[in-house]
Order: sequence, then C-alpha cells, then structure tokens
Amino acid sequence: MSKDKVYIFDTTLRDGEQVPGCKLDTKQKLVIAERLDTLGVDIIEAGFPISSPGDFNSVKEIAKVVKNATVCGLTRSVKKDIEVAAEALKKAKKPRIHTGIGTSDSHIQYKFNSTREKIMERAVEAVKYAKSFVEDVEFYAEDAGRTDNEYLARICEEVIKAGATVLNIPDTTGYCLPEEYGAKMKYLRENVKGIDKAILSCHCHNDLGLATANSIAGVIHGARQIECTINGIGERAGNTSLEEVVMILRQHPYLNLDTGINSKLLFSTSQMVSEKMGMPVQPNKAIVGSNAFAHSSGIHQDGVIKKRETYEIIDPNDVGVDHSSIVLTARSGRAALAYRAKKIGYELTKVQLDAVYEQFLLFADRKKEILDEDIHEIVESADVNIESLA
Amino acid sequence: MSKDKVYIFDTTLRDGEQVPGCKLDTKQKLVIAERLDTLGVDIIEAGFPISSPGDFNSVKEIAKVVKNATVCGLTRSVKKDIEVAAEALKKAKKPRIHTGIGTSDSHIQYKFNSTREKIMERAVEAVKYAKSFVEDVEFYAEDAGRTDNEYLARICEEVIKAGATVLNIPDTTGYCLPEEYGAKMKYLRENVKGIDKAILSCHCHNDLGLATANSIAGVIHGARQIECTINGIGERAGNTSLEEVVMILRQHPYLNLDTGINSKLLFSTSQMVSEKMGMPVQPNKAIVGSNAFAHSSGIHQDGVIKKRETYEIIDPNDVGVDHSSIVLTARSGRAALAYRAKKIGYELTKVQLDAVYEQFLLFADRKKEILDEDIHEIVESADVNIESLA
Repeated sequence: MSKDKVYIFDTTLRDGEQVPGCKLDTKQKLVIAERLDTLGVDIIEAGFPISSPGDFNSVKEIAKVVKNATVCGLTRSVKKDIEVAAEALKKAKKPRIHTGIGTSDSHIQYKFNSTREKIMERAVEAVKYAKSFVEDVEFYAEDAGRTDNEYLARICEEVIKAGATVLNIPDTTGYCLPEEYGAKMKYLRENVKGIDKAILSCHCHNDLGLATANSIAGVIHGARQIECTINGIGERAGNTSLEEVVMILRQHPYLNLDTGINSKLLFSTSQMVSEKMGMPVQPNKAIVGSNAFAHSSGIHQDGVIKKRETYEIIDPNDVGVDHSSIVLTARSGRAALAYRAKKIGYELTKVQLDAVYEQFLLFADRKKEILDEDIHEIVESADVNIESLA
Repeated sequence: MSKDKVYIFDTTLRDGEQVPGCKLDTKQKLVIAERLDTLGVDIIEAGFPISSPGDFNSVKEIAKVVKNATVCGLTRSVKKDIEVAAEALKKAKKPRIHTGIGTSDSHIQYKFNSTREKIMERAVEAVKYAKSFVEDVEFYAEDAGRTDNEYLARICEEVIKAGATVLNIPDTTGYCLPEEYGAKMKYLRENVKGIDKAILSCHCHNDLGLATANSIAGVIHGARQIECTINGIGERAGNTSLEEVVMILRQHPYLNLDTGINSKLLFSTSQMVSEKMGMPVQPNKAIVGSNAFAHSSGIHQDGVIKKRETYEIIDPNDVGVDHSSIVLTARSGRAALAYRAKKIGYELTKVQLDAVYEQFLLFADRKKEILDEDIHEIVESADVNIESLA
C-alpha cells in the first residue's frame, strides 16, 4: 500500500525568523532556502514581503533561485499586502500567496473590533484577490485553535469557493491539546463542503511543548500539510520542529504517511540554521541535539552495546549523525568501560575489569566525563597485569 | 468539584543527571534537592545509590535535608542494589525504593537472555525484598512502551500483590505516540486486578519530541504520577519537562487535574538547574526559554498591546517571569514602535509615526534588535516635529 504524502511547509525564513535577535540578511536567507530545497521541503515560506523592503527583496531573490519547492509569501487580508507579495513572487517557478485573518472571537473583537460576518467577507475578498495573481492560494484562519468549529467550517467553505487550495488551521497560541487539535481537523474533514478541493494544514506553536504532538494528531485526522521550522525555532517557544514530525512519520510506518524529506540531511541542516541564526540548539533537543544519540548510563550503555535497538529507535545515520556515542561518566557501567578500553587497546578479563572499574568510579566521581587519556591513567593506577593491544 | 492530584516525581538528580558532561557534586545536588522541595515536588528521585560511592553519598545527604517530599533511590532487581538503596535512604522522612526490570521482548531476549516467566519472578522478588526495608515501593517495567499489554498487566498484578505502591510505565525509547501511550494506561486501569491499590506513573523520553504529550495522555487516561525533570534534561533527548506538564494541567482546568507545584518558582528553578548543570536552555524552550514570552512580529505585538490574552495564554508572572517583552525588530509594526517610543518619551501622532516607522524599517533591516538609544536616533533622523515628553 502506497503511503499518503504529507507536504512539508517550511517557515524557518518567515515564522522562524520572527525571533528576537535573529535577523538574517538576504544572502544568508538564500543559502538557507537553497538548502531547504535540497532537503526536500515542498513549500518554502520565504517571508512577509510587505513588512519591510529587506524582506521584500529576500522573497524576490529566493523566488529566483529555488528549483523544486513552491515559494510562498505571507500577507494579511489587505490588498496592498497581496499586491506586494505577488510582485515579490513574480519569478518563482511555483508561487503561492498565503493570506488570512484572525477568526477567533478574541481576535475579531479585540484585534479587529469587527464581527464574524465582516471578517468572513474580508477573508473571501483576500483569497479572490490573491487568486487573480497566482493559482496556489493558502488561507490561514489565525487563532483557529480557539475558533468555534462551526464558524471555522463556514469560513473554510467560503474560501474554498473563492479559490483557496490550502487551509491553514493554526493553533496560534499553542494552547490546544493533541486530542482537541486532532478533533478539530476531523470536524473540518467531515463538515466542510468541498473539502476535497483543498489540503488542510497544521500550523502549531510550542508554548506548552505540544506543537509536534498536535501536528501529528492533525495529520492522523486528515490534514496533509505540516508547517514547521528547522530546530523548531520561532517566536516565543517556537513552531513545530521539522525534524521531529518527519522522523515520527518515518518511525511509525503503520500510519501510512510519509514526507519527501531526505532525512540524512537533517543534522547538518540543523547545524547550519543554528549557526546562521545564532540560535543555539540545546544538547537534549530531540533528533538534532548534540546528546540526542549519546548514552552515558551504565544500564543503557550495556543494552546498546549488546543490541542497538534496545535503546535507540532511530539509527543515527538516518538523520546524518555519524555514530551514537558511548560517553563515560560516573553513571557508566563495566560494559561501557570495557568497550571503550578495548577501543584504545586494553582487552580486560573479568577480574581485571573489576579492579579497573573500581578505580574508574573514584576517578569519575571527581570528573564529568572520562576521556581516552584518562582511561590509560586509570588502568595504570588499577595496578593490574594488563596486556595492552596498543 | 475538587481536582484530582497528579503527583510530580522529579528525577532531575537521577535520570536528568545521566547527561554527558553533567556531573554534579553532592553539595550542588543538595542545593537543587532543597529547591525542588520548596518548589513543591512530591517525590525527589535523588540517585542510583549502587552506581558509585559519590551517588550513594548524595542520596544519603539528600535524605537528611529534604523536609516535605518523599526521597527515592533507584535500583535494578538485584538484592545488593536494594540493600544499598535502603541504607542510603535510612534518614529519609519518607523513603521510597524504585526497583524494576526490562519487560519488553527486546529487553528480555537481548539484555537478559531470559524468559517472560523468569523476569516476572525476578520482579516479584525485588519488590518483596524492597518492601522488607520500606513501605513505599515503586516498580518500573522498563521499556513498557514496547511491552505487550497483556504481559505487562500480569506483571503489574503480581507486583501489586508483592506490595508495590506505584507502577512506573516507562516509554524508555521515546517511541510511543500519545494515543498509544494513553491507550496503554487505559488498558492497565481496566485490566489489572487490584489497580486501586497502586498509582500508575508516566515516565516518558523525548526522542521524538513527544514526552510531554505522552505524559498528558497518560494522566488523562488514568495515571496519577508524572516523572519529569527541570528543563526536560536527561540522557539523549531528555525526559518530560516538569514545567510543561505542570502548566498544561493548570491551563486546562476542565481536565480536573492539578499538581502541588508553586509555578511562580518555575523560571528561577530552571535557571538554577541550567547553571549548576552547565546545560543551556534554548531560547525557544517552552515556558522557561528566554524568548518564551517575547513578541517581535508586528501582528503579534499589535495584538498583545491591545489585549494580552490575544497571543499569550500564560501570564508570565505565573511562572515567575517579570513581564513579556516587546522586542523591536524588522518584523515589528507601527503599534510596537509607538508603544516603545512612548515608554521613552515620544508621543507620536499618526503622521509622525508613519515617518518615523519608515526610518525605523531602514534601520531595522541592518540591525537585529532595536534598542531604546536607537529609537532616539531614528526619531531624529525622521526629521519630524516631535514634542518629546522626556
């Protein structure tokens, strides 16, 4: 059975770049965009053209160089925004305009001081206007996570009639639980007339640490696009992590969903984006953190040495990491010590290992990480008759 | 209706400390343990006493100083481990021994070269032996995430009969999806005889970025303890983040679940642990990252200025952060500029603001973040007739 494709909509250069202290220049954005294209993302959201002359220029230059992916520009439901985005996207092989408006009562009342009907009219007008420039128009219902489902379904129906090809259902505040977000997608799949003419898209924020889980719940219940960023960067607690959703789908084949991402480029892409944006990735970040495949506890190391699948479900090579490290610390066991000692030339018998391990623990209680040179010292201080292979 | 209590089992000092490069000395551990006690965690897993003399000593000292929380020590299903843990916990007001064994076929076959029946016997023996030292015995079924549900339920029944008070169901490899993990808890609640005599506990790893979502699915489906760490630190991609699960329960009151955590101490505790462990927290970490409450995009800033709840669902004060920052970048809009300009003394008319904003964008395209001193320069260069309040 062939798998359903989930489109990956990368917004590293738009929503991701909305991070304090994270301004990229056009040249840096071009390098990242080309890399995203090679990585295999389906859509690159390149920027918000009306927001500044620099952003306009970046979108324009990215549209010229991207070979495979659709290039997308963000707008509000404002004519001028749409015109400027269309202009910036002129040279794109596959252009998409992403327009929309806040649809929750909180947004309608406090942000727009408007009514549900008037917001609906503005949404439809914006989509029609965008459609006069490009074929591919995505509509976002901002704060959909807190929008009443019935009203949201009506807006979706109307913008599909107006020509929208993709419906973005953002959990703007990162408030939804996975069950709720999945239920919202299911409701829309079942209640929006004409839904087969459009793709539902997940756009989740990580304020409560649930962006990845919400996106996965979304595609399980009918969405076929995920909006995400490399390293999960983005405003506040960031967006859905591209690398996490891609690997979850790959690790759960029974879901029958897959993406077009070349996962072997995930680690190097993560490093590149982190460096260019000056945004560090914490060591315990899933998939791409420096410790993601490092084992230091004895119980785990012993298991991994016996059979990798005991503790690792992802082969580090699949995401472009050379090998899983066996790091020696005070939590490491005999198996890990013997393994590393052997690598540098000591073949220890059980009795020898016991003696060396005792020294090792005294040493490791004083030091965070035991390096190869420390092992030589430890073996010597253990004072056992060892035949070194070195 | 009073809420059901979810017990917070903090394992920052045990599973959290199993991080390469993260060795804490006893003094540092004592400071963290006292802080966790003040924060309101219910159980502090202080270490794995048999693993090294230093760890034994840390557990012993922590047991002496903790005033409110239960103090817990980890063991394998090995007599010597249990004896050493009991010795380390002797001075604890409320001691708990945490013992267990791998129960998935992968662990039984490759790690123990054993059979399901023999593993069951070892589990029961370990719990009985631990029970001869302390009343409160938690059993972990390692790799429960990949353990056959029927066998897992049988083991749970047998260890409850042997005296276990808590059943830890770890997703050791971080492989489960929230729906699966929730279904596992539901299965155990419904199929384990005597389950009312014990508490089911979630212990999730973040290899696929799902630890938080899995823990929440667990408590929704009947678990009443979550094992977690400050900042989600831990081996590989880490453990469930304490701050995330606590705030998710608080932000979703209709779940009728709550913890005893004083959330106002979350941010400072996060900073303290990060500093003592030398483990950086990435800026876009949920709840405790430096950007978690920072808004830089124009659309968002405008919304937040009009009404905070538009974009923020958590009041930063609730987690001990002073205020949400309005950071000015090239993505910022007129509203944010006017807001910050006013704070430093410029009351701009609409026409003045347009002129100043144009200058601001040129400036911001060259600079990552606009500081107050830059605003003075921008206003001057805009060359409008402004009456400064300063």
